[in-house]
Amino acid sequence: MSTDKPLILISNDDSIASKGIKVLTEVMSEIGDVVVVAPDSHQSGMGHAITLGTPLRVSKSLRLGPEIEAYKCSGTPADCIKFGKHFILKERKIDLVVSGINHGSNSSISVIYSGTMSAAIEAALEGIPAIGFSLCDFSADADFDHIRAYVKNIAQKVIEEGLPTGLALNVNFPAKTDQPIAGVKIARQAIAVFRETFEERRDPYGKPYYWMDGFLQNNDNNGGTDEDALKENFISIVPVKFDLTDYQAIEQLKSWNL
Amino acid sequence: MSTDKPLILISNDDSIASKGIKVLTEVMSEIGDVVVVAPDSHQSGMGHAITLGTPLRVSKSLRLGPEIEAYKCSGTPADCIKFGKHFILKERKIDLVVSGINHGSNSSISVIYSGTMSAAIEAALEGIPAIGFSLCDFSADADFDHIRAYVKNIAQKVIEEGLPTGLALNVNFPAKTDQPIAGVKIARQAIAVFRETFEERRDPYGKPYYWMDGFLQNNDNNGGTDEDALKENFISIVPVKFDLTDYQAIEQLKSWNL
Repeated sequence: MSTDKPLILISNDDSIASKGIKVLTEVMSEIGDVVVVAPDSHQSGMGHAITLGTPLRVSKSLRLGPEIEAYKCSGTPADCIKFGKHFILKERKIDLVVSGINHGSNSSISVIYSGTMSAAIEAALEGIPAIGFSLCDFSADADFDHIRAYVKNIAQKVIEEGLPTGLALNVNFPAKTDQPIAGVKIARQAIAVFRETFEERRDPYGKPYYWMDGFLQNNDNNGGTDEDALKENFISIVPVKFDLTDYQAIEQLKSWNL
Repeated sequence: MSTDKPLILISNDDSIASKGIKVLTEVMSEIGDVVVVAPDSHQSGMGHAITLGTPLRVSKSLRLGPEIEAYKCSGTPADCIKFGKHFILKERKIDLVVSGINHGSNSSISVIYSGTMSAAIEAALEGIPAIGFSLCDFSADADFDHIRAYVKNIAQKVIEEGLPTGLALNVNFPAKTDQPIAGVKIARQAIAVFRETFEERRDPYGKPYYWMDGFLQNNDNNGGTDEDALKENFISIVPVKFDLTDYQAIEQLKSWNL
């Protein structure tokens, strides 16, 4: 099945049964040979979790159509990329990894909790150009038609231009409205935080359990963020790299003489 | 139980039953009032996962002694910090969050998979000074005696000096050897990658399952990393901040005119 078309590995965190990965697979099939390795159940909020101490189950899936080489995996999005690269495709060069299209935003601090972005970042760590796509619409039957052309264009551009080693793109699309998309903005991650509340309830046996709920509080007013772009109906693209070092703080800490 | 001593919230990812959190609680009790909220089971490799779609169970635990206010939680390390801050301690100012002491290194790229560090980073996102402590020894009965004084000193220094908003410290200690610890180095995160392999086995019913194994491959030879420090028997301290934006790449991507 080897052709001269680019080889594209696809994953997500909403599971192989979601509409978003179906759309993404359709669009990527127009520009390359695709292989899908995606979770067999919902993995939202899994962050960069990996499966340790438990083996993985992986099997072929026909859910995306008989013509698509697809696998469902019992693990996390990061597990899917590892397994795809090191087991399923281990003899082949992967040209692009795409993750999504996520049902819901992964802008700002959401990137830390996002399984969608962990799949893209895992690929970037492996030196593969990678893109995480997310739509700011959580509904299971979200409308993706207004973004198909953008998804294809961004993926083609990354295949043509490449990305610096270790870099992934965090791409967020506005939800469908009456207004057309205003364009694309290259942005930085807004420094925001989730404000959580916990609601205590009692189970039928009188024991407490707690539901977490929360909302994003964005105090970042310095402009140029992904949140700013999305508010103005632009697509936001944040280049992300996994180096948490705060280089400015290094000198300060050295002065502590620990 | 309110005193004028600093209030310290403690968590980890090895669970409330681990030796590392017992040692950390003992040391922190010497310098402040402690409250422990820790997972009720092993959460290694959970990265920054949070529990969505399932409620949390939380109950008091006597495992750290009757004099310690401790809670075990069914969620991840990040959940524990959220619940500790927004439910258990919601009326009180938390002066420091400490996580660990992890049984095993969290240097270099391990920080992305680390539940220990996700607890510290979650606290930093909330604006609380935070430290993740890890010992480069995976054994359940690891010897922590050679690092107790350092743990206390680093925590005291952070309480005295504070940390810039959003900053957490990733502190890794060499395992106990015949050699004394050489000192403390402020370092940057080594850019390394895990090399994974998957071993296929068959279950008693003939179905395949896959064990993941791997090792850290460090190709970062530019000096000044946490891996360099640990190799020379130094304690490494990396200041970490959760902003994945690659600012250098922003200009490059703008030239693509997407």
